Amino acid sequence: MRVAVLGATGAVGRTMLRVLEERAFPVDELVLLASERSRGARLPWGGREWGVDVPREGSFRGCDIALFSAGSERSREWAPRAVAEGAVVIDNSSAWRLDAEVPLVVPEVNGGSVAERPRGIIANPNCATIQMVVPLQALRSAAGLRRVVVTTFQSVSGAGQRGLDALEAELAGGACAETPFPARIAANVIPAIGPRDADGWNEEENKMRHESRKILGLPELAVAATCVRVPVPVGHGAAVTAELERPLSVAAAREVLESMPGIVVADGTRDPLPQDVAGRDAIHVGRLRQDRDEPRVLHFWVVADNLRKGAATNAVQIAERVAGA
Amino acid sequence: MRVAVLGATGAVGRTMLRVLEERAFPVDELVLLASERSRGARLPWGGREWGVDVPREGSFRGCDIALFSAGSERSREWAPRAVAEGAVVIDNSSAWRLDAEVPLVVPEVNGGSVAERPRGIIANPNCATIQMVVPLQALRSAAGLRRVVVTTFQSVSGAGQRGLDALEAELAGGACAETPFPARIAANVIPAIGPRDADGWNEEENKMRHESRKILGLPELAVAATCVRVPVPVGHGAAVTAELERPLSVAAAREVLESMPGIVVADGTRDPLPQDVAGRDAIHVGRLRQDRDEPRVLHFWVVADNLRKGAATNAVQIAERVAGA
Repeated sequence: MRVAVLGATGAVGRTMLRVLEERAFPVDELVLLASERSRGARLPWGGREWGVDVPREGSFRGCDIALFSAGSERSREWAPRAVAEGAVVIDNSSAWRLDAEVPLVVPEVNGGSVAERPRGIIANPNCATIQMVVPLQALRSAAGLRRVVVTTFQSVSGAGQRGLDALEAELAGGACAETPFPARIAANVIPAIGPRDADGWNEEENKMRHESRKILGLPELAVAATCVRVPVPVGHGAAVTAELERPLSVAAAREVLESMPGIVVADGTRDPLPQDVAGRDAIHVGRLRQDRDEPRVLHFWVVADNLRKGAATNAVQIAERVAGA
Repeated sequence: MRVAVLGATGAVGRTMLRVLEERAFPVDELVLLASERSRGARLPWGGREWGVDVPREGSFRGCDIALFSAGSERSREWAPRAVAEGAVVIDNSSAWRLDAEVPLVVPEVNGGSVAERPRGIIANPNCATIQMVVPLQALRSAAGLRRVVVTTFQSVSGAGQRGLDALEAELAGGACAETPFPARIAANVIPAIGPRDADGWNEEENKMRHESRKILGLPELAVAATCVRVPVPVGHGAAVTAELERPLSVAAAREVLESMPGIVVADGTRDPLPQDVAGRDAIHVGRLRQDRDEPRVLHFWVVADNLRKGAATNAVQIAERVAGA
């Protein structure tokens, strides 16, 4: 297969290349694309080096799949062109996620929907949303799902390489002029990810609400998120409170979570921590507790590598579904 | 007045001395007490130096007030003796907090209860609880309070000087053999504060439940906490979801919060951040949002200096009430 990667030199793009290699995705030819800044760079993949070009007319010709991770603006510009040139676009930006003609896919939850793609585009969800909806789907299958309250602990790589660079510069004792964050992030936590709407909700919080509803196929689901940036390089954590339709014991919840593909449930000797899950593909769930006042409510903690399952791995899993179909 | 401070050389004890000075508490004589390790140390206060001794029989004789911050074991041992020697003990440990004969006091919420102290002991609440109950009391006064879900972002100084030392050593590139944390805290977040009970709740989470109920005088209040350690030196954050008895608009909530002593409500230009509130006494509230599915539910973010309002300042405020009575 001929596979294009737009945004190949970014934090997610580089992880996509690594995951394609690890999962032995059947690539015959790679087309690496990035912004002007990276033109001429060369990246190793599959035992040889591949040059990086800027996207142009014809870049996607002959490509079966195009993995996009270059921001919403570039996605809006290039996805329709890549489709016109014959590629199926799997897009990691938020540009197409809520488009009714674009499936928004977490393979463990709604993998079947990759086939319904009238625009030729499949959207990869928000990182914090992906790691939450997989355990929610497991719980829902056992006891229904009525309401979600979630507070996230999101690593700086969620803001890409610039986020990683800012934390590193600040920890080294300096400041970072090009920080993507509204305040110093080293030794701090910042409850502001994305622009704020008139009702006080941040964009990331709205993504978690609207994308969860779409992925789970529950358009009325009550979801309230508080999204917080923390000084961690890689790995998002989240404390989730799920109100189910029916009571569910911790033992029963553990059973459905353990049988869900893609989830590892902690055995209790060590809680899932960002530092431990960075570099892994699974979604790690721990701290399962039944509410002491309302037995229909379960609390849990979930951690995943936001560059992998939260972005690159999920995109490659979608590509595998497309290729297999 | 003669004032004793037990645990005078710890992170909270030193802050108590600073706050006594800042608030011009009428101290005629200080009695500084600490463990064997600190015996012979000298601390500056009020323009002169005071020697540090270990507590012994007679240490508290003639003392009007004894501020304790030396852990539960020492509190259980020394509080009754200090009371017998004539002091009112204001204790920062968890030893006496849930004792029915010991008031648990946040002056803005239940300051009147300092007078009812049959044991001669007044307990200073858990740091994360203090900063949460003050805004909750304001909201409750306007619309009642039915249920609380809270996720905390707790700084390493909540574990005392050892916590600060561990973070500093790890950030300097090393490890810390004497860390109080179950894993590396630099570049990580750890959802485990205190021992875990059979149902999966950590001690800190149980403190937030039981202490909130007692301080607010709502023994049946539903409280579910997830307490997480973050790599921040000073300043605890918390994302709070409060289900009220009646709907309350953001504007109305802001009004009652702004009229509550001890609270500063962010104006929206900058969210309250641990880095900004460290060293301050106020409880800083921001990110006020009304739930989009249930108008009786409000979400907010609250940050305070855990060594000051979360410990030392609250204790000195209690001492002021005792001295004024």
